[in-house]
Amino acid sequence: MRLGLGLIGSGFMGKTHAFGFIDVNQTFDLPVKVDRVILADVGSRAEAAASALGFPAFTSDWRELVTRKDVDIVDITTPNALHKEIALAAISAGKHVYCEKPLAPLAADALEMVRAAEAAGVVTAVGFNYLKNPMLKLAREIIDSGEIGEVRSFNGIHAEDYMTDADAPWTWRLDPAGGGGALADLGSHVVATARYLVGPIAEVLGDVRTVIADRPDAPESKTRRKVEVEDIGRAFVRFENGATGCIQASWIETGRKMQHDFSIAGSKGGIAFSQERFNELDLYLTSDQSGRRGFRKIFAAPEHEPYGDFCVAPGHQIGFNDLKTIEVHDFLRAIAGEKTDHADFREGFEVQRTVETIYRSSEAGAWLKVA
Amino acid sequence: MRLGLGLIGSGFMGKTHAFGFIDVNQTFDLPVKVDRVILADVGSRAEAAASALGFPAFTSDWRELVTRKDVDIVDITTPNALHKEIALAAISAGKHVYCEKPLAPLAADALEMVRAAEAAGVVTAVGFNYLKNPMLKLAREIIDSGEIGEVRSFNGIHAEDYMTDADAPWTWRLDPAGGGGALADLGSHVVATARYLVGPIAEVLGDVRTVIADRPDAPESKTRRKVEVEDIGRAFVRFENGATGCIQASWIETGRKMQHDFSIAGSKGGIAFSQERFNELDLYLTSDQSGRRGFRKIFAAPEHEPYGDFCVAPGHQIGFNDLKTIEVHDFLRAIAGEKTDHADFREGFEVQRTVETIYRSSEAGAWLKVA
Amino acid sequence: MRLGLGLIGSGFMGKTHAFGFIDVNQTFDLPVKVDRVILADVGSRAEAAASALGFPAFTSDWRELVTRKDVDIVDITTPNALHKEIALAAISAGKHVYCEKPLAPLAADALEMVRAAEAAGVVTAVGFNYLKNPMLKLAREIIDSGEIGEVRSFNGIHAEDYMTDADAPWTWRLDPAGGGGALADLGSHVVATARYLVGPIAEVLGDVRTVIADRPDAPESKTRRKVEVEDIGRAFVRFENGATGCIQASWIETGRKMQHDFSIAGSKGGIAFSQERFNELDLYLTSDQSGRRGFRKIFAAPEHEPYGDFCVAPGHQIGFNDLKTIEVHDFLRAIAGEKTDHADFREGFEVQRTVETIYRSSEAGAWLKVA
Amino acid sequence: MRLGLGLIGSGFMGKTHAFGFIDVNQTFDLPVKVDRVILADVGSRAEAAASALGFPAFTSDWRELVTRKDVDIVDITTPNALHKEIALAAISAGKHVYCEKPLAPLAADALEMVRAAEAAGVVTAVGFNYLKNPMLKLAREIIDSGEIGEVRSFNGIHAEDYMTDADAPWTWRLDPAGGGGALADLGSHVVATARYLVGPIAEVLGDVRTVIADRPDAPESKTRRKVEVEDIGRAFVRFENGATGCIQASWIETGRKMQHDFSIAGSKGGIAFSQERFNELDLYLTSDQSGRRGFRKIFAAPEHEPYGDFCVAPGHQIGFNDLKTIEVHDFLRAIAGEKTDHADFREGFEVQRTVETIYRSSEAGAWLKVA
Repeated sequence: MRLGLGLIGSGFMGKTHAFGFIDVNQTFDLPVKVDRVILADVGSRAEAAASALGFPAFTSDWRELVTRKDVDIVDITTPNALHKEIALAAISAGKHVYCEKPLAPLAADALEMVRAAEAAGVVTAVGFNYLKNPMLKLAREIIDSGEIGEVRSFNGIHAEDYMTDADAPWTWRLDPAGGGGALADLGSHVVATARYLVGPIAEVLGDVRTVIADRPDAPESKTRRKVEVEDIGRAFVRFENGATGCIQASWIETGRKMQHDFSIAGSKGGIAFSQERFNELDLYLTSDQSGRRGFRKIFAAPEHEPYGDFCVAPGHQIGFNDLKTIEVHDFLRAIAGEKTDHADFREGFEVQRTVETIYRSSEAGAWLKVA
Repeated sequence: MRLGLGLIGSGFMGKTHAFGFIDVNQTFDLPVKVDRVILADVGSRAEAAASALGFPAFTSDWRELVTRKDVDIVDITTPNALHKEIALAAISAGKHVYCEKPLAPLAADALEMVRAAEAAGVVTAVGFNYLKNPMLKLAREIIDSGEIGEVRSFNGIHAEDYMTDADAPWTWRLDPAGGGGALADLGSHVVATARYLVGPIAEVLGDVRTVIADRPDAPESKTRRKVEVEDIGRAFVRFENGATGCIQASWIETGRKMQHDFSIAGSKGGIAFSQERFNELDLYLTSDQSGRRGFRKIFAAPEHEPYGDFCVAPGHQIGFNDLKTIEVHDFLRAIAGEKTDHADFREGFEVQRTVETIYRSSEAGAWLKVA
Repeated sequence: MRLGLGLIGSGFMGKTHAFGFIDVNQTFDLPVKVDRVILADVGSRAEAAASALGFPAFTSDWRELVTRKDVDIVDITTPNALHKEIALAAISAGKHVYCEKPLAPLAADALEMVRAAEAAGVVTAVGFNYLKNPMLKLAREIIDSGEIGEVRSFNGIHAEDYMTDADAPWTWRLDPAGGGGALADLGSHVVATARYLVGPIAEVLGDVRTVIADRPDAPESKTRRKVEVEDIGRAFVRFENGATGCIQASWIETGRKMQHDFSIAGSKGGIAFSQERFNELDLYLTSDQSGRRGFRKIFAAPEHEPYGDFCVAPGHQIGFNDLKTIEVHDFLRAIAGEKTDHADFREGFEVQRTVETIYRSSEAGAWLKVA
Repeated sequence: MRLGLGLIGSGFMGKTHAFGFIDVNQTFDLPVKVDRVILADVGSRAEAAASALGFPAFTSDWRELVTRKDVDIVDITTPNALHKEIALAAISAGKHVYCEKPLAPLAADALEMVRAAEAAGVVTAVGFNYLKNPMLKLAREIIDSGEIGEVRSFNGIHAEDYMTDADAPWTWRLDPAGGGGALADLGSHVVATARYLVGPIAEVLGDVRTVIADRPDAPESKTRRKVEVEDIGRAFVRFENGATGCIQASWIETGRKMQHDFSIAGSKGGIAFSQERFNELDLYLTSDQSGRRGFRKIFAAPEHEPYGDFCVAPGHQIGFNDLKTIEVHDFLRAIAGEKTDHADFREGFEVQRTVETIYRSSEAGAWLKVA
């Protein structure tokens, strides 16, 4: 099966997606082959990007792209505010849609996208590529098989420090129209991980905090602008299966570059993980012999699919960009009719609805049901 | 100055305290010398313990001990329920009092103890020996000196797994009269650390959870008894200085043996610590040169007081029992009139009041002021 | 500039090289563009591989490939025994040559290749892709700038465990005609790293050991065949600059998957590295303030070139295959006339000569000069 | 049984020994009780030290001490050059002798001490307290039980950095009459560990290096004195059981404070250890399920004897001084007639003979048998 790709946006994420589609066929033996057809971006950027990324055609009008007959997949990497309009147009043209997270700043809009896609029967995917790590797949397999017993608690954090400096100027991340701050941007990844490994979140108790009250409104500017989104977001959660947990996000955790860490405690074992070393998973089993128990540091190896498609030997390590390639792979497999566990639009909506409930809970100062 | 010691209780903590008083004079050059005078315990245990621990006298009546003229220090390591009565008697006899934590199951009782001690002008100490770690003293020095700027957040956890097995039988830890479960037992240490490093906690939002609903009421018993205390306790906190944080405690975190970990984010740096490796402190400074920044792993060394009193060279490591010796040292220094930062009865009360507020907040499902 | 690529071999390394040439233009903004022209492999494998890897032509005769006018680069990933003959033919046809390590089983043959290439003035590269890690480039920059003072010692090891099982059957790695065992296969990487960071090795004292005397001569076979190559190789070394060190290699280090670790001690600091976490480098500086000294864990970040071409943010991590892309990048930059520090044929020869001297030293039981 | 202790020397090691004898009875339930009888040191230091360390008598003449009737144990912590004379006198007086390492600068002298002790039938001990770590005992138990199969290799290093600064003045450690430099001082610990875990060393190939050629002959002095002992010592070794290994020692490994690390590879598993975190042992077992294999980080716990005598719960950690207490415990148990695996004079001699052979091998540039 050959499929035509239309890519909208050619910034950092646009490039990463393009590479994902190129690398996927180098890396995997897939029945689906993808042809780069057309790239859309604003004004003159489209032509240069199309040439650099190997798209034979380009346009500055995404509407032209989504309706082309030779485009089967629409890949959206534009600013968040445009996701919904483009996705709905693509879905109504019968295209499969791959969209960066978040689907839309508001969960209600995301839900509209989900409903349209499900009604149209197209395949969708949303960019939560941390989930595509073979070590997370291993964690899920360990949990699902009952190796650590019944899951009792989840403790996760995503912390970075790119907003630590109070004099770092305004960026699009601070725009409240984007749907939130550190919790929306980083915490959503922890919500996605928690859902992937433990299951749906039923209730939340949130606490979001703006620490740096104002920032320069532009580089070198002496005028400061009020910050309306949070620098730190936290929530206690109760999962539908009864487990409870804690989710934290911060973009001012000085010194942390990529701390997407979690611990899971089960009745018969535990799991610990850090994205800073994402080719490793720590596993503790109470069934190990007394005096010999301890967290095992398991390195990613060919037995942990699909690591072996990237490296023939253990411990060699896949990189961040390879996670995107795996995400594209799962999306294409789903289009080819295979059963996958990848994050589709509905999952994207569920994550967002959970995040949104945390904001409302923080405002209310009370537990709220995710519904 | 020579001081007479009366020790009440000779279980695990009683022994640890006795050793602390013996080791303190071996380790430190102190103006105060302590003579072991009398040991009190229940029934026939007193005699054997007095002999083993080097106390010339013994009694089964703690009242006799607290009123002896040759006793200057009363050291209480009995079950928690007895702390208050004994301490009040000792204080009223004009003795300095050293009491294991918690001062009492209820903060109101603890407060009564504080008031009595302050009115009597005796020196007090409560057993939070994790705080006596030279690496925590270093962390405080780093914070106080402004090296990491203004503290913005604190993320702490104390997790162990000694209650993981749902068939582990009932213990005194599960007695609701003890004041609580994992939060009171372990979380209180995180509260103490947070207060020591960041300052008083003004408000809390709690969430406590009983995960294992019932347990065998005795070893080998088939009758199960309902558990009324929490296995997991969590709280979001706001410090008086404006920083916010998260505090977690669990005794069912499978695989964790002594996870008393915290991260502190400041405007110019960060600190990370794990009790599993308590002779190390990680420090990040934004003032380091670009491309060379990273958390520095600092090993305890003679320049970190009072490590050098135990080991003449860096990296050799002090042990858990040495922390108790340092605690005794600080208590004796305070008796000798020196200024110390050790946890006295007031600090013990403040910790407990914070813990108690977390319980009430969890019940209310709302933020509560600590007051 | 457009260059035509002829690839010989399409096994694991052949594929990795092909991907490197594809990814290099996605990742870097290069003046040189590479067109895949022709692929050579044995018999019918060539056609399938050419199709899978995007080469428009294929052949089962590598001689045809090396003499094609539209081929500018010959890339050799055949079994080691063929490297020399192919490389000499390619060089004599005026092609730039990229060859997997080792250049040839014997250093004398490697030298012949070097001399031919240097006489012809073509650009060469040999596959030591661990060296292309931005963290190793950082280590070299730190050393060259004098930040850790004068280098005094180097301690390196490359240990894996893929030959641990004494009943694992015979493989090509055990063929003595290949030039050696664990030392040639893995230790050569440590030699390369040592040379890259510290400089040429003047003298060696070797010790190589065959631990598993015989192995099944084929899968499931009960006939055992004598092993003639070493499972463990070690050497003490003296560098030309006076520093000394230790180099170790093992393929039976049970539990190790990719332990390519080293420590470097300088007069003003130290460096430590592990390939198991190759996006990190530990740096110690004696110039740090007393009481605040410790190894800093530096995560790969955009300021460490060329990490930023793969990930726009620190801590995201590049993978093993990305190292090959960087290697191809440097090779192409060299063809374009830029100054690079990549491993060319001469460097490949120097590594091999050092390895060979270790074998001879081990046999002699005495120090030998590398010459 | 009550035994009288005579301690000779009251410097750092003297104090540590005294504390060990005091703590041993607090910590362990021993049939042997030790009374501090007399302390000997030079001139006026004896009186002050006796008072501080709780010895009722003191002397400036060690000969008086070794012949006293009420002294059963002579404990020698003097400068190395005096060890032999004192030990021989104590042995001839029928005393049990505990001596700091090394027994004597020359192995021949150490052997004389061994023979005297064995002829007299007294119990001896030499101070290799790293060996008394419960985690090393665990490692030995794992090896002896065959859990990791046949041991194939040992890779150990002891590196610190207290001599890194080329302008650090002369100390007694640099005196060639002391028997050597970093290898004798630190490397001897690795030899002891290797022997404890793997067995006797049959052959060695040494390489010792003086890196800093001269140092100030006194603090603040501008006169420099030639250094005649090594800063770095290394050896390849062959054990009697056929395993091979590498042993390294350095006191100029900048940044390392207490790196006494080793890895052991067996046919069915591996062990790794670092003294920097000496309450942990890493264990890898090939018998673990595929996809779940990894080094397990085992924390010291009550099931690892005699950790439980110090801490009732796992992960609390013993300290460096506790290792000395365990050493004293084993010595006293041996005196009481129990079977122990502690390092006696013969073991002290064997370590020293091995170290001495490494020096001779380094000079010869050739393998030498330890004999």
